[in-house]
Amino acid sequence: MKKFTNVTADSVANIYFDGKVVSHAVYAEDGSKKTLGVIFPGDFRFDTEAAEIMEISAGSCEIVIDGTDTKKTVSAGEAFNVDANSGFTIAVKEGVCQYICSYIKG
Amino acid sequence: MKKFTNVTADSVANIYFDGKVVSHAVYAEDGSKKTLGVIFPGDFRFDTEAAEIMEISAGSCEIVIDGTDTKKTVSAGEAFNVDANSGFTIAVKEGVCQYICSYIKG
Repeated sequence: MKKFTNVTADSVANIYFDGKVVSHAVYAEDGSKKTLGVIFPGDFRFDTEAAEIMEISAGSCEIVIDGTDTKKTVSAGEAFNVDANSGFTIAVKEGVCQYICSYIKG
Repeated sequence: MKKFTNVTADSVANIYFDGKVVSHAVYAEDGSKKTLGVIFPGDFRFDTEAAEIMEISAGSCEIVIDGTDTKKTVSAGEAFNVDANSGFTIAVKEGVCQYICSYIKG
């Protein structure tokens, strides 16, 4: 399992979609932000402000990134990128999918 | 909101009770562990190994600590202690309760 050292962790989680998505934010010394998230079964849409790298750390999901119509399965150990000011849909069919979202400063 | 600086964060969350309780672990430089948790509505039981300080950071819950029969409501900003090798029940009636659990080395 990946561990992030020398970070500052927010104690209160972000809760989305009535608890179907939960994430805790951590900040590196350079101020860059990552969220460590958990996605329960369902279909969700996220908009991006900054560009994002989404690494799947457990389970799997099906994504469609805005501007494409390609449904792609992404599993633990794999990642996908989303442009700034864009978005993506993400579906978890079963179990729990976990991710590490890195926000890329423009 | 409390923030924990200079910690190491585990990227993968602990998931209990079919996702009703989710927590991410962070470790201070001295190795001491805290978990940042989210509890969805339900009734749950936790056993302790090390003694624990449970700070409620959002929402509220009802607890009964082993060896007592006193049901106590604990809300955001309040905390309760549980001895090592003991346990407690915790119930969340509505909304989401969040906690910071500090594990106290013996």
